[in-house]
Amino acid sequence: MKISSSKSSLLTGIQTVLRALPSKSTMSIMECILINTNGGKITLTVNNLDLGIETVIDGKIEKSGVVAIDAKLFHDIIRKMPDSDSDITIETDEKFTAVIKCENTVHTKAGRSDDEFPYLPDLDKSDSIVMSQLSLRELIRKTSFSIADISEDTPGQQTMRGELLEINDNTVKMCSLDGHRISMCKMELRESYPDRKVIIPGKSLKELARIINGGAEDDVEIIFTPNHVSFEYGETRVVSRIIEGNFFDVNKMLVGDYETKVKVNKKRLFECLDRSTIYVREGDKKPIILDIKDENIAIKISSANGSMNENVPAEKTGKDILIGFNPRFVIDALNVIDDEEIELDFVNSKAPCFIKKDDMSYVYVVLPVTISGV
Amino acid sequence: MKISSSKSSLLTGIQTVLRALPSKSTMSIMECILINTNGGKITLTVNNLDLGIETVIDGKIEKSGVVAIDAKLFHDIIRKMPDSDSDITIETDEKFTAVIKCENTVHTKAGRSDDEFPYLPDLDKSDSIVMSQLSLRELIRKTSFSIADISEDTPGQQTMRGELLEINDNTVKMCSLDGHRISMCKMELRESYPDRKVIIPGKSLKELARIINGGAEDDVEIIFTPNHVSFEYGETRVVSRIIEGNFFDVNKMLVGDYETKVKVNKKRLFECLDRSTIYVREGDKKPIILDIKDENIAIKISSANGSMNENVPAEKTGKDILIGFNPRFVIDALNVIDDEEIELDFVNSKAPCFIKKDDMSYVYVVLPVTISGV
Repeated sequence: MKISSSKSSLLTGIQTVLRALPSKSTMSIMECILINTNGGKITLTVNNLDLGIETVIDGKIEKSGVVAIDAKLFHDIIRKMPDSDSDITIETDEKFTAVIKCENTVHTKAGRSDDEFPYLPDLDKSDSIVMSQLSLRELIRKTSFSIADISEDTPGQQTMRGELLEINDNTVKMCSLDGHRISMCKMELRESYPDRKVIIPGKSLKELARIINGGAEDDVEIIFTPNHVSFEYGETRVVSRIIEGNFFDVNKMLVGDYETKVKVNKKRLFECLDRSTIYVREGDKKPIILDIKDENIAIKISSANGSMNENVPAEKTGKDILIGFNPRFVIDALNVIDDEEIELDFVNSKAPCFIKKDDMSYVYVVLPVTISGV
Repeated sequence: MKISSSKSSLLTGIQTVLRALPSKSTMSIMECILINTNGGKITLTVNNLDLGIETVIDGKIEKSGVVAIDAKLFHDIIRKMPDSDSDITIETDEKFTAVIKCENTVHTKAGRSDDEFPYLPDLDKSDSIVMSQLSLRELIRKTSFSIADISEDTPGQQTMRGELLEINDNTVKMCSLDGHRISMCKMELRESYPDRKVIIPGKSLKELARIINGGAEDDVEIIFTPNHVSFEYGETRVVSRIIEGNFFDVNKMLVGDYETKVKVNKKRLFECLDRSTIYVREGDKKPIILDIKDENIAIKISSANGSMNENVPAEKTGKDILIGFNPRFVIDALNVIDDEEIELDFVNSKAPCFIKKDDMSYVYVVLPVTISGV
């Protein structure tokens, strides 16, 4: 194989596929980046079997071929190459030794064949939807923070490691939950599609959100197959395994018989809760107590280290309520809401709090903490 | 005590004195910040006995007094206060409980008296020199990287934990060494002073360099006493213990009988060495080999992971030489040199390399690594 490409094209490509590099792996081939010239294009691939990414980069193919190289080292080599007008050339011999050259700099690095490399599966593209990259990134940003942090080896609730992606007619909905809270966000699609539900691992979604940089005008196609979901845009494919099983039926959990409704400035409440976290220490998780009366939320936290209280102006309808929360859970939700004013709905002090938009385009549900001796 | 001050004044003051907060301490009082109103000024102090910092902040004293508060928590409280036009007030009662208020936010935090607090020593200011803050910061930046990383509890070479600050007539010189290399940097003072030598702990110098933000026009006074050195500017004092003992006599080590002199572009050499570090891994510290001929340095590194070679143009006088180094040691020196072109002087392949300025305003000495079987 002999190819040449600019440092910037190589770097952009490498940094995209590197997102699929496993933090630790049992097979050394998974720590490799595959460079191949099949189909007359220079394609880079990294695949850890749960998540695989492939992208095409610009460049010249002087001699077609394939080589797998340690991905981190290859990244370092390219990253530290001189910033030059000359292209970087990569040439391999029959033993897959790669010589990587730019100007006066010559790196020699042992590579491997593609014999053991897990190529991305060839997927049937008949079942797919299209949405903007911006919308997909926003859906992920607004829901992924409450994916349960449980390991793949934990028996039981494996579906909580992922998010539900649900298509209903012309709406797409994403939902995650972790035992303390639920996040749901919904958007309209430009077309209608058949109904569909799929659970995508949280890790895949988080890496995907880092790669898709496009805006509202840039589309991404999402392809569904029995075992995989693939996100494709330009000449990049992000293929993730899906999690089998049934996701919790959260629809019933997203509404309640509200006794109290409160309107409050989001930034004001966010900053107050953020201040309160000063008193939340590892191993001493003090709740924050909200005492909601007509035009005011009296917020209070007490710990061995000290205490804080603050009044936040609010507009309440319904009953007064006294309720406690882990402030971080409420902060996480406020952090991803873009509205200036938000609505908090309460059933009673032992039932969850609902932070939601009138049109139900988002709902965040946070369980309260029992407060004793207040 | 009752004082009020703006959030920005308080933050600037706290962040200055916080540099003396020990990473871990045996006495809880050392984790406190002392606020006192002695002399009609609001003074903040943190002192870990090796390094103590005191600064005066703007504000109003409504009732004089003193209180010691957990420094990290106090920093968090002030940092997260609302950005407001109103001042923050700090009021303590007879039990040293502090109420810290701004707008609607009220923090209540137990404080302590100054009974056990180690106030900064009152130093005799008769023996001092003056230089610009910029010069002092530059002297530290250009030499502190080679202070030996040894603990205070290590018997023996305690002086290597610090840097030598030496005054000779109208020059100030700083010098550090760690067994592999020596760094020396020298500057002219505006006045002449009596000769003087003092060893200042590396940690004190590094923290000092972070605080003194002034330029060439802003002075700092350095006061010498038998056990301490104090850096004073504006209303801030940084007092450090000094290290007792005799520093290595490096003057003899800073010159040699050079057989080879090489002029090379600094950026070009720096980038090449930086690339070579790709092949330097923990536990496999491969040297970089410089093969210096008339108009070229052929640079080479080989490891189990691969190899690199590169030619860097240079201008050599004297003998050809083949010599090996730990690339990081050379990089550290190049990193702080501002000149575009540098001179490397060699005695032979077993003697140190000297990177120096003609006028001897800086000298970096790096020991070579034995290279076998090249």
